[in-house]
Parts: sequence; C-alpha cells; structure tokens
Amino acid sequence: MPPTNPPLAAKLAGLQSSAIRDLLKLTTRADVISLAGGLPDAALMPRERIAAAAETALSNSSCLQYTESPGWAPLRAVLAERESARLGRVVPVEEVFVTHGSQQALSLLAEVLLDPGALVIVEDPAYVGALQVFRAAGARIVAVPLDADGMRVDVLAELLARGERPAFVHTVSNFHNPGGVTMSPQRRRELAELADAHGFWVIEDDPYGELWFDSPAPEPVATYSRNVIRLSSASKILSPSLRVGWMVAPDRVCRGVELLKQGADLCGSALTQQIAAELLADETWLTAHVDSVRTAYGARAKALVHAARDRFGARIVCTEAAGGMFVWADFTDGTDTQALLPRALAEGVAYVPGSAFAVEGGYRNSIRMCFTTSDAATLTEAIERLARAGVNK
Amino acid sequence: MPPTNPPLAAKLAGLQSSAIRDLLKLTTRADVISLAGGLPDAALMPRERIAAAAETALSNSSCLQYTESPGWAPLRAVLAERESARLGRVVPVEEVFVTHGSQQALSLLAEVLLDPGALVIVEDPAYVGALQVFRAAGARIVAVPLDADGMRVDVLAELLARGERPAFVHTVSNFHNPGGVTMSPQRRRELAELADAHGFWVIEDDPYGELWFDSPAPEPVATYSRNVIRLSSASKILSPSLRVGWMVAPDRVCRGVELLKQGADLCGSALTQQIAAELLADETWLTAHVDSVRTAYGARAKALVHAARDRFGARIVCTEAAGGMFVWADFTDGTDTQALLPRALAEGVAYVPGSAFAVEGGYRNSIRMCFTTSDAATLTEAIERLARAGVNK
Repeated sequence: MPPTNPPLAAKLAGLQSSAIRDLLKLTTRADVISLAGGLPDAALMPRERIAAAAETALSNSSCLQYTESPGWAPLRAVLAERESARLGRVVPVEEVFVTHGSQQALSLLAEVLLDPGALVIVEDPAYVGALQVFRAAGARIVAVPLDADGMRVDVLAELLARGERPAFVHTVSNFHNPGGVTMSPQRRRELAELADAHGFWVIEDDPYGELWFDSPAPEPVATYSRNVIRLSSASKILSPSLRVGWMVAPDRVCRGVELLKQGADLCGSALTQQIAAELLADETWLTAHVDSVRTAYGARAKALVHAARDRFGARIVCTEAAGGMFVWADFTDGTDTQALLPRALAEGVAYVPGSAFAVEGGYRNSIRMCFTTSDAATLTEAIERLARAGVNK
Repeated sequence: MPPTNPPLAAKLAGLQSSAIRDLLKLTTRADVISLAGGLPDAALMPRERIAAAAETALSNSSCLQYTESPGWAPLRAVLAERESARLGRVVPVEEVFVTHGSQQALSLLAEVLLDPGALVIVEDPAYVGALQVFRAAGARIVAVPLDADGMRVDVLAELLARGERPAFVHTVSNFHNPGGVTMSPQRRRELAELADAHGFWVIEDDPYGELWFDSPAPEPVATYSRNVIRLSSASKILSPSLRVGWMVAPDRVCRGVELLKQGADLCGSALTQQIAAELLADETWLTAHVDSVRTAYGARAKALVHAARDRFGARIVCTEAAGGMFVWADFTDGTDTQALLPRALAEGVAYVPGSAFAVEGGYRNSIRMCFTTSDAATLTEAIERLARAGVNK
C-alpha cells in the first residue's frame, strides 16, 4: 500500500453511505416484511415486451456500437414528443438529454451548475440521493419544509427576501420521495415566478409523475418557466435496468452536461436505449401498461394507509395514497422511530426512520413506508407487526 | 433565462470538447475513408450470442431490477476468476468493481484519489478521455513521453528524483491509444518498483490487452505491485453497448468508488451485466470469438502498416502492427499534419492529427490511424489518398 496518499483516507472518512442502503442490507431476511426498500416491483415490469424489443434491436448490429453522449437520436425524438405533450410547448430534440438514470442527471447538473460553496435549496425531508450529490459537490444546503401541498414556497420566498441566492432549488414535485406529497398548482406557479424574478434554476425531479392513482399529477413546474430543468425516468414505469433517465433543459445546459458526460462515461447503452425508445413510442401499449402498474400500486397504497389509520387512529398522521411509491407517517404520540426499529425488525417488519431523510435533524417520530412490492394482505400484516412492536413505547 | 448564474457560462467556456469527437462530426461523409474513428468494428461483435444471452436473462424478471452499485455479483465472480488467471494471484470479488465502461472508472478514481492541484502523470501522447477527466478534476498534469517500449520510465524516475510526488501515474500499458506501443516487461517492473518506493498509485488502463496479433501482451503491471489499479473493459472484445468496464483495486479504493458510484448513477444495468457475465464465463466460445477479432484486426493493421511503409518509405516512421486498434505514424519530412487534414479530407481520407493527443504541444508531424473498421484494400486506398493529399507539402 502506498505509504503516502492522504486524500483517499480523508475522502473515505468524509463520504457517508446512504443510510437507506446500509439498512437494506439488514432487512433481506425472508421473514421480514420490508417497507424499507425503494424499489419498483419487478413482477410488474414488462418483461416480455422488453424481451421482444431486445430481440428487434439485436437483429441489427448498430445497437452494439457506442452511441452519442446525449443519447440515441431516435430515443431523444420520442422523448421530445412525449415532453412536448406534457409541457404544452414544442420541446426541440436539442433540449432533451438522456442520462444513466435520472441520478446521473443530478450528479452532472451539480458539476455544471455548482461552484464549491454555492447555495442549493432542497426540500426537508429530502431525497437522499440528491442530498448526497449536492453535499459531495461542496454546496451549502438550506432546507425548506414540506407540508401537504408540497414545498413551503412561502418559506423559500422568505429566504430570498433575506438575500439568499441559490444556484438552484431541487424539488420532487410529484408523489415525493420520501414525503409522499405533491406540490399544489398554486405553489408551482409561485415557485416558477420566484425563479424568474431571482434568476435561479429549479430542478424538477419527477420520476413518479405518471404513477398517479385517482387523478393525474398537476402540470409540471416546467410549464410555468424556462428556468426549470425537468428530470424524469423510465425506471419506475418500465425498468431501472434500462438505465434510461432524461433531462429537459435549455440548450446551453444540455451542452455543458454533454461535455461532462463524455468524461463521466462517454455514452449510454445503444441497446437499452433502443429498447426504451420502442416501448415509449408505443402509446397504446404504454398507456395500458402504466395503467396496470397504477392500479396495482394504488390498491397496495390504499391498503397500507387504510390499515395504518385503522390500527393507529389518532396516534398517526399518514399522507394520502395518491401516487408514487411511498407513504410518509408521523406518529403523534412521541414514538421514537429510530429506537423502535430494532423491535420492529424483531417483529418482522422494516421501514426507514424519518431521521434518515432529515436535512438538519428532526423527523424522529416519522417513518417512510414503501408499498410497491407487497400485496394488500401483506401490507396489512406489516402494520399489525408494527403495532405489536409497540409504537407507544 | 436566469439573469444571474455566472458559474454555467464560466464552466462552459472552460470545458473543451474532445477534438476527436468534433472532428468525427466532419468525417461521416460516405466518400471519406475514415482512419479517424476510435470505434471497434460492430460487424465483428457477437450479435447472435448477445441476443441469445439477452433472451436467457429476460426469461427472469430479476434482470429488470436495480442491481448493486459494485456490479451484479455473478459478473464480479466471473471477472474475479478471469483476473486471477491474468494476474497469477487470487483476486477476491471484493477487489473487483464493475463500472459503466472503463471511462467511468477513470472519472470516479479521479474523484476519489485527487484533490485539486494534485499531481497526475500521464503519457505523451495521451488518451484524451483520461486527460479530460484529470483536467476537470483540477489536477496538475505532467507528461512523460512514450517510445517504442512504452512509457519512458527513466523520465518518470527523474521527475521523482527531483521531488515530484504524483497521486497517480496513468498508463495505457498495451497497444497504446493513440501511441500504438506496448510497455516492455522491464519497464513494467521498474514502474511497479517506483510506485512501491514512492507511494503512488499506477492506473493501468488496459482495454486492448486481449487484442494482440502475433504474441500475447506482457504480464500486466499489476502483476508486480499491489499499488496498481487495473482497468479493463468488455467494449473492445464484446460490445461497448454492454457498458461493462471493470476495475481491480484494493478493497478501500473499491469502497471509495462505491460511495461515489451511488451518487453518480446508483448502479449499472442488471440486464447488460448478465449478458456480459454469460459471455465472459463461456471460456471456449470467448477464446474462439476473441481469436476471430484478433485475426481480422491483425490483417487490417498489417495491410495499413505495409501500405504506409511501402508508399512513404523513409518519409514515415510507423508503429508495428502488434495489437489494439491504432497505428501511430511520424512523418520525418516535416509534414504538418494539421495543415494537411483539409487536403486529406478533400482527397477522401480522414485521420486524427497527432497534436490532438499532445499534452504540452507538439506531435505536429504525427497522425493516429485507426484500422478497425475497414478491410485491407480500403486501408491501402486510404494511404494512396493520403499520399495524393501531398504529405511533403
């Protein structure tokens, strides 16, 4: 081992693994019902359709070659068409950039848009994958709380009035991970107006928007302002294994990301991008497929929320089962959810304590529950086990 | 557009796109024979075998889910076995890390191992994908020239004797891109000894090692020291579209890279990693397949070198057609290869001027020629066109 080389040791000490990932390693016991994961249900992924698309792509050797850094051109064209419909304006192909999951968009954007010490505003509780990237980029992080209508844009306005100047504001606008809530149309408009007035970017991180249960998600924040960089992904509606996320952003942002993408990994996979393009272009099939995922997740989410409210009554406040993959619950009886976790695991149920998502501490009475990979009966049993673990201890 | 936000404009001005990529955009005319590319031949990639492996993987939905950040475990096991055979020691799975092409290993290693201003030693001419990453990381770059035996390790020794302390030394040890040469066994031993004595890492970047034509590449530098981080890839022997590169490194380096990989893109594709695992595990098939690629590339390389020596005689010094994908040629008659390029394009042949790979200027009389995607007759015609373009102007 090199006798010198201080940077590695220092950096290893400074980096923190995702608390969720570390926890997941402890919750793979077969007898544990895990509400702790954050994975979509592989059984609902369109395996046969992907296999057929793979066979089609592999009938030609072009899918085996390196592809362009911003993504395989026909996939970008399909995405431009979909995003044009979603945003109600013509999105040119040059403003669509394919990334290796939307996580890569976050990391490349952090590199392009942030200088060390730049201010980034996030939601609290926060998506930890974003928080990790912004911290690694040396950003100063300030959090704005969520409520039932999403980001407290009034708190953001106060920060701006006090002179804070963020490089960007990150929001999971629809069916928040971990918070479960969706930003109201009114707040979307206000957030966009603040971005225009103060000259900051909004990163609208939207992997869950299509997974609504009863009524569609509101118009994207990107509808209201060109200062919004919109991220989405095929991971939750098709399969994470395609590693296809995408970004809609002004051309100059896309070109900055392109230069960094060349250094980061040259390009994505022409094979999985061709598969994604075929599936995303097949509107009729896709609509039916996403409908079936929505129906399954909706039933699960409602069973979970129903069981939690039924079992805990006034001792819990749960988000609505409106969409996405997560329900957030606050115990009103002082239950310390970190202290509860070992007892819950002993009873055979796992969840993620709210504190794992806290930006500046707190959320010690909260939990995040993922409902995607268990059926209604199993989720009801999970709540029973949680109750047995003694939430009022 | 945001009225403030100086970082983006400044960063865009500071970033430089790869000169090769910009050039490639100009050389896609059908009537141009391109020696300028750097792509393996898609026609030689095992399309049918990949299709069969995809079908097998897609018979089960597990390949559709997120996989582990260090790579799909069975792929890591196959790679550990192959690298154990290559390195002559047991490589534990924990020391094998799958990256999104070996380019991602370079970018994550730069992030883990470098602080701004750290010294990185590269070869001159250099692999521009590495140079771009090290520059973006804020490293101070010092170049050591290549000769016919690879990196001038004596020049590196002089730098060390003068007190230079690199964080790491980057080398493309086999069939250099762009230089075409292979480091001699004696220099590998000397480089390893210097790494052990002075406590720096060697990044042995080896995507081409299996593409030897007449005799196998020497033992890896990693055979001689545990201070060597070894990179390789399936891109040149199977398909870049699998996006499977890998790193063999001490456990603590792998764990640092793992934390950064989570932020960079969470994980790779379980689908393409399962395909890669099946193909890399099938020794008998793989040996025959790689042999067929070697035979084809060997014939092309020899035709190109033969034509160049035959046509230009003493006016050119060409590397041997020994392996890999590139031949490097120095004109001895003062030909300015950047000035020649427009005339060459007019005659219907493209190449990359040596100056595109220069770390500190120079190589104005040199060219890099890629022989992978044309047959012998076409390569011979390319040299004719180059001669017509008037190399002694």
